[in-house]
Amino acid sequence: MRDVYIVGVGMTKVGRHMSLSLRDLASEAALKAIEDAGGERPEAIVVGNMLSSLVEQENLAALIADHSGLRGISGFKVEGACGSGGAAIVAGYSLIASGLFNKVLVVGVEKLLERPTPDTTRGLAYAADADYELIYGISFAGLNALIMRYYMDKYGISREEMSWWAVMMHENGYQNPFAQLRKKVTLEEAMNSPVIADPIRLYDSCPLSDGAAALMLASKDYKSLNDTPVKISGVGNALDSPDLSSRFELDSLYASRLSALRAFKMAKKDVKDVDVAEIHDAYSIIAALSIEEIGFAEKGKAPKMWAEGRFRPGDKPVLNPSGGLKSRGHPVGATGVYQASEITMQLRGDFPGLQVGGEVGLTQNVGGVGSNITTLILTR
Amino acid sequence: MRDVYIVGVGMTKVGRHMSLSLRDLASEAALKAIEDAGGERPEAIVVGNMLSSLVEQENLAALIADHSGLRGISGFKVEGACGSGGAAIVAGYSLIASGLFNKVLVVGVEKLLERPTPDTTRGLAYAADADYELIYGISFAGLNALIMRYYMDKYGISREEMSWWAVMMHENGYQNPFAQLRKKVTLEEAMNSPVIADPIRLYDSCPLSDGAAALMLASKDYKSLNDTPVKISGVGNALDSPDLSSRFELDSLYASRLSALRAFKMAKKDVKDVDVAEIHDAYSIIAALSIEEIGFAEKGKAPKMWAEGRFRPGDKPVLNPSGGLKSRGHPVGATGVYQASEITMQLRGDFPGLQVGGEVGLTQNVGGVGSNITTLILTR
Repeated sequence: MRDVYIVGVGMTKVGRHMSLSLRDLASEAALKAIEDAGGERPEAIVVGNMLSSLVEQENLAALIADHSGLRGISGFKVEGACGSGGAAIVAGYSLIASGLFNKVLVVGVEKLLERPTPDTTRGLAYAADADYELIYGISFAGLNALIMRYYMDKYGISREEMSWWAVMMHENGYQNPFAQLRKKVTLEEAMNSPVIADPIRLYDSCPLSDGAAALMLASKDYKSLNDTPVKISGVGNALDSPDLSSRFELDSLYASRLSALRAFKMAKKDVKDVDVAEIHDAYSIIAALSIEEIGFAEKGKAPKMWAEGRFRPGDKPVLNPSGGLKSRGHPVGATGVYQASEITMQLRGDFPGLQVGGEVGLTQNVGGVGSNITTLILTR
Repeated sequence: MRDVYIVGVGMTKVGRHMSLSLRDLASEAALKAIEDAGGERPEAIVVGNMLSSLVEQENLAALIADHSGLRGISGFKVEGACGSGGAAIVAGYSLIASGLFNKVLVVGVEKLLERPTPDTTRGLAYAADADYELIYGISFAGLNALIMRYYMDKYGISREEMSWWAVMMHENGYQNPFAQLRKKVTLEEAMNSPVIADPIRLYDSCPLSDGAAALMLASKDYKSLNDTPVKISGVGNALDSPDLSSRFELDSLYASRLSALRAFKMAKKDVKDVDVAEIHDAYSIIAALSIEEIGFAEKGKAPKMWAEGRFRPGDKPVLNPSGGLKSRGHPVGATGVYQASEITMQLRGDFPGLQVGGEVGLTQNVGGVGSNITTLILTR
């Protein structure tokens, strides 16, 4: 297998972009990544996106390649619900590792704020099981709430312990110029914020976001396109049932564990080696489950650890220096690409927000309620 | 680059499947392909699909893996408009060629007949450019009609010459047990069929279809899973602008030519080597342009050639022994996978319809009006 390097990153600010269309947003990130890779033209593009159907547009690889001045290259879109970005990186990785291409652009893009919120909320639920879950009228937040209730009861987790996650994320994201919600939040604000789907409150939940991020991937022959190439040392993806009622356990993210094990094995690294990670905290409960399945905490212990001040700068690992999905935001199909861009910059030492550095980084991008999960191990 | 083989194929009948959901259809094809590969479990799944958003379901890799008894494997969905199936094969190919996996299942699936026809017609137009084309109210057939009119005028092609394509396709497809429209059509019927978007008539156009097809791909170590493995010798994909107004030439399929050149170069084969091919005749005009860009005919000559009886059994190449999109049908995201399944069976000698055989086969799957095109060269 040929080694694959990240030689360029590009991000747009996450937020509401009324004056930029989907292709504008995607091209802004794409051209930044190309510029970061010395202006080199990619041979292929992989687009991570879940919900462009909301704006009546598919065929995104052709659309974005053309708008970015790349007509004639190869490419396609990859979808894996909220894990589309991570899955797109797996596809881009394999296009280079195979020898088919030497330079591949991976672009994650999502535009959730163009349509009325009820349409977007309904669209996000396409990540769940339409025939066996949505038919009962449950929302995506509702599905996550079922797990959060069960988990808090089972392990005796308090409201206060859960809410410390949001406080910490906003402390980190406050420093990130690309973050959507750049403001600090107090424990009281988080604990007393409006209920979305009990026990999920506003600050347990990520915002709806527009945004795009891009990575230039390259083979060993082209790693010098950037002075500080970062190696993709491990790639792991795993699928689980979208339908919660058929899961092995309601409070386990089987695919998180599997994908992390696969990535660690390939990278010949251990969970203890990780200095910095970006994990997928769409809801605080998903942060807790991911932390535990990856192995950063024992089962049922993650909220107690973060309430005690763990995972902050100075600790190992530092989690979500970007502010995570809570503060940076969650432009669904772009999120996995944001995570990889952020960790690349952490390892290079040029992340413009909370810069913590390190030698070994991890990203985990979660699609659905844990049904399509990608873990990456990045190394200097 | 590691060699990749097709060691299993599976297809459902194309048509209207009111009693099978999207996951049922996909799993039927998936399990047939797995059975054809000796019951071997794949390590990853790539799903080709364009329009599952019409039935409010994304996250198809997780959904179909779970329904097929494959929970825990890796995977994602690939989209490239009507070329989604071909692009999914490119992704599956690279997952094996890279060394990430040894056994990958590629499943193409589409369910277009579940929703009212106006919704489906609108959905198909997501393959075009929403901001610069659809905003004017043009349909996907309308875009193809613009090219057909221009092409017929430019090269002096008659209505009769164009219509011979449909007659030939229905002669072939009449013999295919998986075809949607298993009936012969006379020249008079084709020429006088209702106008869809002038000059496109009913028999110039493929039907709306439900269907699924699957391939088991394997590395060299696993090629013995099937007694007659078929090698994927060449893979070529190319993107063009979705927006027709910005094309280099209205009657050229730039991406068809590029993708074919790339596939031939990789396979070290020439257009003259091709014994049998499945091309993407969504409209007769697209058949003509593809035939010319691949190099089976000179520019402006394809309809005259097929009207004179070329491309039929006994000729080299034989085109679309399946009946093509016209008769076999066009379950959009599945079509590229049907084509590869059909050519695999032609080379193996077990296609249950018009069996013509050969040593070298080609498939070309066209997304949008030529904006995402994949060409494969398959060899015994």
